[in-house]
Amino acid sequence: MNAIICTVDVVLLTLQDEALHVALLQRDHPPFAGVLALPGGYVHADEDVDTGDAAMRMLREKTGIESPYLEQLATFSGRARDPRGWSISVAYYALVPWQVIATARHPELSLLAVDQVRALPFDHQQIIATAVRRVRDKSSYSSLPVYLCADRFTLPQLQSVYEAILGTPINKVSFRRKIDELDILEPVAGALETGKAHRPAQLYRVKKRFYRQLSLSDRALSSR
Amino acid sequence: MNAIICTVDVVLLTLQDEALHVALLQRDHPPFAGVLALPGGYVHADEDVDTGDAAMRMLREKTGIESPYLEQLATFSGRARDPRGWSISVAYYALVPWQVIATARHPELSLLAVDQVRALPFDHQQIIATAVRRVRDKSSYSSLPVYLCADRFTLPQLQSVYEAILGTPINKVSFRRKIDELDILEPVAGALETGKAHRPAQLYRVKKRFYRQLSLSDRALSSR
Repeated sequence: MNAIICTVDVVLLTLQDEALHVALLQRDHPPFAGVLALPGGYVHADEDVDTGDAAMRMLREKTGIESPYLEQLATFSGRARDPRGWSISVAYYALVPWQVIATARHPELSLLAVDQVRALPFDHQQIIATAVRRVRDKSSYSSLPVYLCADRFTLPQLQSVYEAILGTPINKVSFRRKIDELDILEPVAGALETGKAHRPAQLYRVKKRFYRQLSLSDRALSSR
Repeated sequence: MNAIICTVDVVLLTLQDEALHVALLQRDHPPFAGVLALPGGYVHADEDVDTGDAAMRMLREKTGIESPYLEQLATFSGRARDPRGWSISVAYYALVPWQVIATARHPELSLLAVDQVRALPFDHQQIIATAVRRVRDKSSYSSLPVYLCADRFTLPQLQSVYEAILGTPINKVSFRRKIDELDILEPVAGALETGKAHRPAQLYRVKKRFYRQLSLSDRALSSR
């Protein structure tokens, strides 16, 4: 009764050209060898502490990316989703700045705009859609988008990250109030973004205690 | 590498004496035989379509309750949580009116106030805490609490269900506005609640298309 295949899959998301992108890898063995799919694989009972640990290992081994913001998404299961048999995939999503992908990038890694994802093996298209919906929902009332930012960023840059995820312009005053309320940022002393046409803007970074933990508010951001 | 135990567990919640209660069952075999725990068991690859289907079967077989509002909660896993070995439990939560438990009730079923849950086997205490947090979070901006109501109820009754879950009094005007916005209720033609000291109140029921689907709003309920 326990011939069940146990895997994890990771939806690795980043922002490129102001659009959410997902990282896909060519599968190196059957089923679907050579086809682009989510980084994933078997849970190793002898090695992994839990499925979250397995997802971290998968990212490390298959993309070279270490310990990003990673959260459990949902579990996908059944006899239909994998030609090998009845399977469970515990899916996770991770958010990283584009620079992390650009430097850690494995040769086989492809970035695809999430709105252009078509016909993937297994139920990976459904897993990605679930992740994108979760990130959009959560961004509206939390600090989640900061994980897509570089180490240092200006408030207008952060606002444009929120806007790219939510797919809509945000009211600047409401955005600033929300960021104050979330209380996740600190100014980098003496650091200004310069060299642009407008006047220098203060650079910020995420407060240390929010490196791995979201700050939530109970009211959604409002559109412009 | 696939000696992984695959189970589902169900957090069956109801409202009794204006407090959230969870249904627990005496386990009938080891480990922890005779001890109260969540209804759960092995996924049957030959029988279950997916883990959601397994959770429905578990409820039906172990509590006699058919197809309540059931949603995936999260997956709990690792080598430490089950003495039999590395295990995955896909946890679900279900919400039912108290009357459903009272009539379907198996002799071994115990109702425990969620705030009084102590030392349960496996990580069941953590699973219940996760479910209660999810229900409280979700109730604040959705129609979730209607699944705890009887077939017909008055608006003050529904408000007291929300208040019991959120653990705080709710502003009546904000509550009525929220319920209007969620657009989930319809008056039962000609049906009034009578026999109380106050004047008769209109009875409502959930619109059919929301029997199994939540209605969401993007603003949380505010306290009184």
